[in-house]
Amino acid sequence: MGALRPWARYGLLVVGHLLALGLGAAVLQALEGPPALRLQANLRAELATFQAEYGVCLPPGALEELLGAALAAQAHGVSSLGNGSEARNWDLPSALLFTASLLTTTGYGHMAPLSAGGKAFCVLYTALGLPASLALVAALRRCLLPLLSRQGAWVAMHWQLTPARAALLQAAGLGLLVAGTFVLLPALVLWSLQGDCSLLEAIYFCFGSLSTIGLGDLLPGRGRGLHPVLYHLGQFALLGYLLLGLLAMLLAVETFSELPQVRAMVKFFGSSDPLNAEDKGGILGQDELALSTLPPPEAAAGQAPAC
Amino acid sequence: MGALRPWARYGLLVVGHLLALGLGAAVLQALEGPPALRLQANLRAELATFQAEYGVCLPPGALEELLGAALAAQAHGVSSLGNGSEARNWDLPSALLFTASLLTTTGYGHMAPLSAGGKAFCVLYTALGLPASLALVAALRRCLLPLLSRQGAWVAMHWQLTPARAALLQAAGLGLLVAGTFVLLPALVLWSLQGDCSLLEAIYFCFGSLSTIGLGDLLPGRGRGLHPVLYHLGQFALLGYLLLGLLAMLLAVETFSELPQVRAMVKFFGSSDPLNAEDKGGILGQDELALSTLPPPEAAAGQAPAC
Repeated sequence: MGALRPWARYGLLVVGHLLALGLGAAVLQALEGPPALRLQANLRAELATFQAEYGVCLPPGALEELLGAALAAQAHGVSSLGNGSEARNWDLPSALLFTASLLTTTGYGHMAPLSAGGKAFCVLYTALGLPASLALVAALRRCLLPLLSRQGAWVAMHWQLTPARAALLQAAGLGLLVAGTFVLLPALVLWSLQGDCSLLEAIYFCFGSLSTIGLGDLLPGRGRGLHPVLYHLGQFALLGYLLLGLLAMLLAVETFSELPQVRAMVKFFGSSDPLNAEDKGGILGQDELALSTLPPPEAAAGQAPAC
Repeated sequence: MGALRPWARYGLLVVGHLLALGLGAAVLQALEGPPALRLQANLRAELATFQAEYGVCLPPGALEELLGAALAAQAHGVSSLGNGSEARNWDLPSALLFTASLLTTTGYGHMAPLSAGGKAFCVLYTALGLPASLALVAALRRCLLPLLSRQGAWVAMHWQLTPARAALLQAAGLGLLVAGTFVLLPALVLWSLQGDCSLLEAIYFCFGSLSTIGLGDLLPGRGRGLHPVLYHLGQFALLGYLLLGLLAMLLAVETFSELPQVRAMVKFFGSSDPLNAEDKGGILGQDELALSTLPPPEAAAGQAPAC
């Protein structure tokens, strides 16, 4: 790899990435193709049976029209079934959850704007709100990361580890903490609260929300006829989870990206120069500072901004 | 603001953020509440009419059962209507689009895994693939950002601007370029290709995809009975759009976050020290290097890694 020219290395990286995309697609196709076809076949059979049994009373196409209308409405988050307690789609807790899903870029899609004004507002709100959120996270990061580094520095001193080892241990510890507190624990809570949801599905939901993917196929509490107070409590819990979880995720990603091992790997793919003084820490010349677009090493011991 | 203690400043920031969330929720509630209620009322009326006209033939609950099954299937991306050409839900182009929506964290949700194995695979695939994607973007960033900076440096020399002005102009230029190439242009193309989609809806879709929110309420081409070749071409176009658009977005965000003005603002909320030597560039002491968690200034003139 070291003998290749930089553009060839980048090309290999990109091609490798696309191959990984294709591999994932092939595996999912194998895993999911049959169940989806089976479900579709079952649905079609149900529809055919319905038509056969009761079709004599129904004008041609009336059922399809009704189904189509119901399906289209659901695509925009409006349910046609269910009693009145879930009829208020855009009540304040739901609207709050929606705006949070916009600003965390999760975007579940269980609710979506119908009107042109709503769509335009979403675009503007996100265009202004996303940079503001990023700035907030950057500000909080300056406050919180040194706190975490101080723990790492204490551990390094206590166990007499090299800085690189201490950094790795700290990053691993933070990763486990985030995974435990923000994926496993919420998944266990969700699993115990919802009867018909397996632990895997709960982990799948928590992970999808935390990584801001937000497929929206499983949303806890929806369509179950829960008491409104419980439902709203759940929505507020999800809201807090999205906001805190994203912050925790970004802090963990930042910590990992500052690891000397990770930075060395990224640099390896980049330049053809051998590792320079940057990786050994210390004082950098202005050129090297300008070349480096990765954040500097985290604080070892020493002063940290008051927070 | 400067007289407040740091934790009070952070508290104000967080409270301000939550207020902005609430304000967005209130506006959306006002804009979207009535249309959603109207749509639901229409649906309920249609259902009631259907029941009234043909209910005599149908056993109680049979229609609700059928509707429920169709709606539940759609929540997992399986359509009950439509002809066979869209029956193959997990064909390779669709599966590729799905894995790309996972790794870009867009997560439209128009398709979602049904089987436990599929869900588990998605969690593992994303857990491994997301960090790999981030590393790829970091590597490409080291290559591409200096190229952009060189343009900025040339403009700065040619028009004799101060470095701060040049950086601002470059960031603004890049922002406009990304907005034009990755939001406006695709929206115009989408608008001209799809008859029943307004320009606002096209911009709303492009913006939602680029920002990785991915609500999934509007997906071009779905359910329109397009010729399969055209539909797959469209899927590949969307795939490339997601991947390239995310890269462009991240580069633009990186460029903006390195602006002296932005960094000063973030620092202002952070420490109570006046602006230190870091913002003037130049050689930093190890303590100051350790304190700073923001990326160093982008390359001015000078050497850049070969790419």
